[in-house]
Amino acid sequence: MTDNTRLSPGDTIGILGGGQLGRMLAQSAASLGLKSHIFCPDPNSPAFDVSSNFTVAPYEDVDALDRFAAAVSVVTYEFENVPGPTAAHLDRKVAVRPGARALSVSQDRLSEKQFLADTGVAIADFREINSQEDVEQAVAEFAGKSVLKTRRFGYDGKGQLMIRTPNDVANAYERLGSVPTVLEALIDFECEVSVIVARDLDGNCASYDIARNHHENHILKTSTVPAGVAKETLDAARNMAEKIVTGLNYVGVMGVEMFLVKSGDSEELLVNEIAPRVHNSGHWTQDACLTSQFDQHIRAVAGWPLGAATRHSDVVMENLIGHDADDWKAVLEEPSAKLHLYGKAETRDGRKMGHVNRISSKAT
Amino acid sequence: MTDNTRLSPGDTIGILGGGQLGRMLAQSAASLGLKSHIFCPDPNSPAFDVSSNFTVAPYEDVDALDRFAAAVSVVTYEFENVPGPTAAHLDRKVAVRPGARALSVSQDRLSEKQFLADTGVAIADFREINSQEDVEQAVAEFAGKSVLKTRRFGYDGKGQLMIRTPNDVANAYERLGSVPTVLEALIDFECEVSVIVARDLDGNCASYDIARNHHENHILKTSTVPAGVAKETLDAARNMAEKIVTGLNYVGVMGVEMFLVKSGDSEELLVNEIAPRVHNSGHWTQDACLTSQFDQHIRAVAGWPLGAATRHSDVVMENLIGHDADDWKAVLEEPSAKLHLYGKAETRDGRKMGHVNRISSKAT
Repeated sequence: MTDNTRLSPGDTIGILGGGQLGRMLAQSAASLGLKSHIFCPDPNSPAFDVSSNFTVAPYEDVDALDRFAAAVSVVTYEFENVPGPTAAHLDRKVAVRPGARALSVSQDRLSEKQFLADTGVAIADFREINSQEDVEQAVAEFAGKSVLKTRRFGYDGKGQLMIRTPNDVANAYERLGSVPTVLEALIDFECEVSVIVARDLDGNCASYDIARNHHENHILKTSTVPAGVAKETLDAARNMAEKIVTGLNYVGVMGVEMFLVKSGDSEELLVNEIAPRVHNSGHWTQDACLTSQFDQHIRAVAGWPLGAATRHSDVVMENLIGHDADDWKAVLEEPSAKLHLYGKAETRDGRKMGHVNRISSKAT
Repeated sequence: MTDNTRLSPGDTIGILGGGQLGRMLAQSAASLGLKSHIFCPDPNSPAFDVSSNFTVAPYEDVDALDRFAAAVSVVTYEFENVPGPTAAHLDRKVAVRPGARALSVSQDRLSEKQFLADTGVAIADFREINSQEDVEQAVAEFAGKSVLKTRRFGYDGKGQLMIRTPNDVANAYERLGSVPTVLEALIDFECEVSVIVARDLDGNCASYDIARNHHENHILKTSTVPAGVAKETLDAARNMAEKIVTGLNYVGVMGVEMFLVKSGDSEELLVNEIAPRVHNSGHWTQDACLTSQFDQHIRAVAGWPLGAATRHSDVVMENLIGHDADDWKAVLEEPSAKLHLYGKAETRDGRKMGHVNRISSKAT
């Protein structure tokens, strides 16, 4: 439903997904006087603990979706892989934000790249791949290193294959499951950065400072702000991010990941991927900004004006992954650290259990 | 129960009282990976919306209290008028923090003043009053203006009578309900300030910057930090606050209200009253400090170390009282304002509906 719904305090935001992102969205909603209703198939969802209402049901349960739609004023989601039919069904009953187009574009790596290219933001060269022959032809055209990625359901490095040697090419299509894929030119980047951008119902945009991201085992480990890039690069990043959300007629917060490429003194940015939701690399905003990305997303999907995306402190966000979270006591002893834990019952390797924001005075 | 209970993430904090203070405590608990269980007789308590569990029962319901005590690792409270027998009953089953002594002292204005005087902090002169004759004798002794206050259940200016003229003296005891009261010398103060102080299980203290408080109709309207007092005054305030919590063997956050008295260039502080809980005049810490008073209280009652009480921004907190909260849209338009709403269903005159923190860069 494309409408102009604007919420009032006391109204309810429906959230698809009950993980840590849904949890932190529900916490921001509560601070702003809104209620939240979490919809998640997992009966142990950490978001249930902090929301006024929740539904445990599969995303395909049409009756449960109808009751959910009737109980809320607007629907948003914490993950981009909301099944298309679920989003479409809800969209006929209630405003779904950021919006169906953002979901369909970001669920398919090829559509995403085509959209980004059409929008005029810089991206790495890519080819659509539907066979082993396609792989071989594209690798030859790129004449360099490349990476093969499935079009759907990839995250944290899953569904990817590096192609550096002829051996890597052999059976590559089959090794990724013989599903539609995209071949991307491999970029020799300095680092990954990201922009958290928001757009409201009236089309106003606000983007936070860019963060420099460091990954370990393909999972985000730290985000550092300021990122240590030129002012022009910062402006360019924000510019691209705002172009993207405007192009999608987007309402809410989006995470835009970019590669920073250096040649000599010049810095160039290539958009890697977009996430139509609050983003792990924006958790630093909770303690370094007056308006966090979670507050910002709630404001946008409520049809409210955006808050300022300014920053009062420098910050390094560190993810607590798996047994990292066992160190919570040591974190509590650090005077400049703020501990965030997600209330997950079971610690598993690779599972995001919490994060820490370490702030310091803003360097001038 | 005086014990050394220390919680781990996933444990549950019991909170007596489901108003906005209980709500904001539950929100901080969740951010730190703790669960909360709210106990409140009011089925419409705003804190229920953000807590993992709650009980609706009178504070005198012993069975409900027993079930509550069995379900939590520690109990705290959002208000100082927890019935004595309730606190005593719980204390036999589970650690109650800040502690029984803090409750009994702060529930009786006379005990509180005697304790403060014994602790060696400066307070206004006072007399115990049990009859109209006592009033008349004490007024004569003070030879100036004074204020008669009931010993129990006074708040927001209720249960008080100003005595400025002989007319005010007539029937004063009867007019306050013929209950035990205290007569205080009326202080000609410059302003009211307050210190939010915390003490952990190991006896470490941390106190925030003092706030300058402005009241309207006997209800706190704004708290401003910095308060614009001399550095020595700031140190003295913190010193007194830490003396008080140490004297009570206190665990948690306390609000200490003081009168600032000026004579020429010199500033003197007199402690007015203490609140053994998080305090309205400490709401500014949510957006001007990394560790808010709510985080701090949760850390202390969990048996965890305190966070730093340092401040990264200057701030003015404004209460949204009654229909003030109807202006939420205008607040959202202000770039330096953070809106906090308590999710109360009904707006009533004099009811605290929310607050706004307006921050700015720290003046050096």
